[in-house]
Amino acid sequence: MSNNRIQIFDTTLRDGEQVPGCKLNSEQKVIIAERLDLLGVDVIEAGFPVSSPGDFKSVEAISKIVKNATVCGLTRAVENDIKVAAESLRKAKTARIHTGIGTSDLHIKHKFKSNKEAIIERAFKAVQYAKSFVEDVEFYAEDAGRTDNEYLARVCEAAIKAGATVLNIPDTTGYCLPSEYGAKIKYLKENVKGIEKAILSCHCHNDLGLATANSIEGVISGARQIECTINGIGERAGNTALEEVVMVLKQHPYLNLETNINTSMLYGTSQLVSESMGIYTQPNKAIVGANAFAHSSGIHQDGVIKNRETYEIINPADVGVTESAIVLTARSGRAALAYRAKNVGYELTKLQLDDVYSNFLSFADRKKEINDNDIHQIIETSNVYQQIISA
Amino acid sequence: MSNNRIQIFDTTLRDGEQVPGCKLNSEQKVIIAERLDLLGVDVIEAGFPVSSPGDFKSVEAISKIVKNATVCGLTRAVENDIKVAAESLRKAKTARIHTGIGTSDLHIKHKFKSNKEAIIERAFKAVQYAKSFVEDVEFYAEDAGRTDNEYLARVCEAAIKAGATVLNIPDTTGYCLPSEYGAKIKYLKENVKGIEKAILSCHCHNDLGLATANSIEGVISGARQIECTINGIGERAGNTALEEVVMVLKQHPYLNLETNINTSMLYGTSQLVSESMGIYTQPNKAIVGANAFAHSSGIHQDGVIKNRETYEIINPADVGVTESAIVLTARSGRAALAYRAKNVGYELTKLQLDDVYSNFLSFADRKKEINDNDIHQIIETSNVYQQIISA
Repeated sequence: MSNNRIQIFDTTLRDGEQVPGCKLNSEQKVIIAERLDLLGVDVIEAGFPVSSPGDFKSVEAISKIVKNATVCGLTRAVENDIKVAAESLRKAKTARIHTGIGTSDLHIKHKFKSNKEAIIERAFKAVQYAKSFVEDVEFYAEDAGRTDNEYLARVCEAAIKAGATVLNIPDTTGYCLPSEYGAKIKYLKENVKGIEKAILSCHCHNDLGLATANSIEGVISGARQIECTINGIGERAGNTALEEVVMVLKQHPYLNLETNINTSMLYGTSQLVSESMGIYTQPNKAIVGANAFAHSSGIHQDGVIKNRETYEIINPADVGVTESAIVLTARSGRAALAYRAKNVGYELTKLQLDDVYSNFLSFADRKKEINDNDIHQIIETSNVYQQIISA
Repeated sequence: MSNNRIQIFDTTLRDGEQVPGCKLNSEQKVIIAERLDLLGVDVIEAGFPVSSPGDFKSVEAISKIVKNATVCGLTRAVENDIKVAAESLRKAKTARIHTGIGTSDLHIKHKFKSNKEAIIERAFKAVQYAKSFVEDVEFYAEDAGRTDNEYLARVCEAAIKAGATVLNIPDTTGYCLPSEYGAKIKYLKENVKGIEKAILSCHCHNDLGLATANSIEGVISGARQIECTINGIGERAGNTALEEVVMVLKQHPYLNLETNINTSMLYGTSQLVSESMGIYTQPNKAIVGANAFAHSSGIHQDGVIKNRETYEIINPADVGVTESAIVLTARSGRAALAYRAKNVGYELTKLQLDDVYSNFLSFADRKKEINDNDIHQIIETSNVYQQIISA
């Protein structure tokens, strides 16, 4: 694989599904996994097999049906977790076990009541044990975002020695600034002995709204995998949104970083996940929100009608949205009104438009959104209606 | 004002209100403006007065009631726009006129069918004319994100010469990467003659999910104002979310950049805007989403119960949310179940918990979310129930 290929590790079915109240059943998970496989993700994290019998069954079912992607199961650095994950992944064409442990002082002290050396030992043993089942083992250093870099490098070295192929550096609490997260990846890339044997992976959370930027800064700084979810779903403020990082890379070709994603399937996949989980994206969600390509202000509509690129950098068709919706409101200008009027059959002169427009404004001040029927009514009640239809 | 104070310029009522179908009436706008004033924003962009009679009235009404913030009206670089804006702002304690013009090649060529020198001339004249009405004039260079830096610097110099106090550098299409946007601000800070007479302002859009990161990179690079909206609402994928940039700065005190925002009012203000506009934030919206502080996975819940900071960097009370909600699902572990069971009156031993937990898992595999009533039922149908109540 080229050194500029960014692996997309989708964790919609694991970290994404941790949204309170949005558990998917096995059948729904299989349908989503099939779609993710078609979308072109490199890895599907299918679940946390030891966590419940339902999750075990889902990982097993997904392992059977996925054709291209690697199927991955999460574990703690606990032997039984790893054994159960390996069992659930038995039928996968390519399987990965994802194991790890918290490495920040807070996690070591409060969660594990342990110490730094003992944590390194546990990390090593967990990877080594996972390696006895599968070739591809990913290690996560939980709360890496708040772990000091020197210690983090030592933990990574131990994981590589034990055979880890991927090192996941999670900003578990969504705390890092892009510059900090990028610097962390760069430090590891430059200081971990044996780093050429593994790739670094970005796993960012969105608590401060920075997950996309942090992941992008991570791959610019040398990471080669991004862990993300469709619609950015997940616990708290969620994970990095797959559709956002993929489109950032696509829209900035000079970065020379590519993914395998078929972007024209992004919108459909977003809809499938929303409907399955019963969590809808807000209208202003980047890339896949209902309004992501909708213009309402007069200045913008005028620009888009003259040349789409004045206000749109993404061609909606590239992400599977069939056309930019020009929505009319009291903020819309003459150009948008004329455009929509033309669509429903009226070619207006500049003078006719002035009259129709003032009628439109008083109408739009009362009604939030103007649809095609309203346009007929606005034109029919304008002073120049006779003149328009006799043209 | 200290050199480390970041001005928060709220444009919920202008750029934010450009969401298709979400027009607010004057009364709603006044209520939101009052709340923004209490929240502590420095500037309220109240509307685009020339755009419709309704908008003019709203700006006029807001000008009358705002006590602390500067009230601002948007205009194009058009005399009549500016005159009408000045008229609508007459009653404001402190008024600002916001005028400007597109400066990218795309905008100059396709939108204005003009040339670079003529655009500089129009920019100068517009600011000069606005200055004849008010002292505080902000100039925007629309599509600055795609404008070459050298020309942009010349436009900024002309605006400063004409008297501009603020230079708004909009990434109109949400195209920039944080590093690019930061570099642009730095370039202007270092190359615009007379820059000490004005402050630079970040106005970012979220088309690629980078608005928050870009604004933060902007102020790190020398800008001193962020233009943003409550909940990040706005056209397409919306604007920079006020609550996100404010909390990023608050959570990274070493940046030494402060705002005047009373953060404990963020959640309530978010709710007010959602309800007024009928646009709800997605559950995983950073800072103000319904799940922003909700933990459902076992690993996380266990951590939070031991020490809130293991997984939460923000104290929910700091943004006006009264407590982290611990939600039980099939992903939850023993610790969360024991915590919630204790809250409803059962103190379980480790052995009792094992039995109740397996009962809980089969229950949670069927039901998406477990509430307090379910916990009673789960415990009452467990094998060890007699033992628990006789304890």
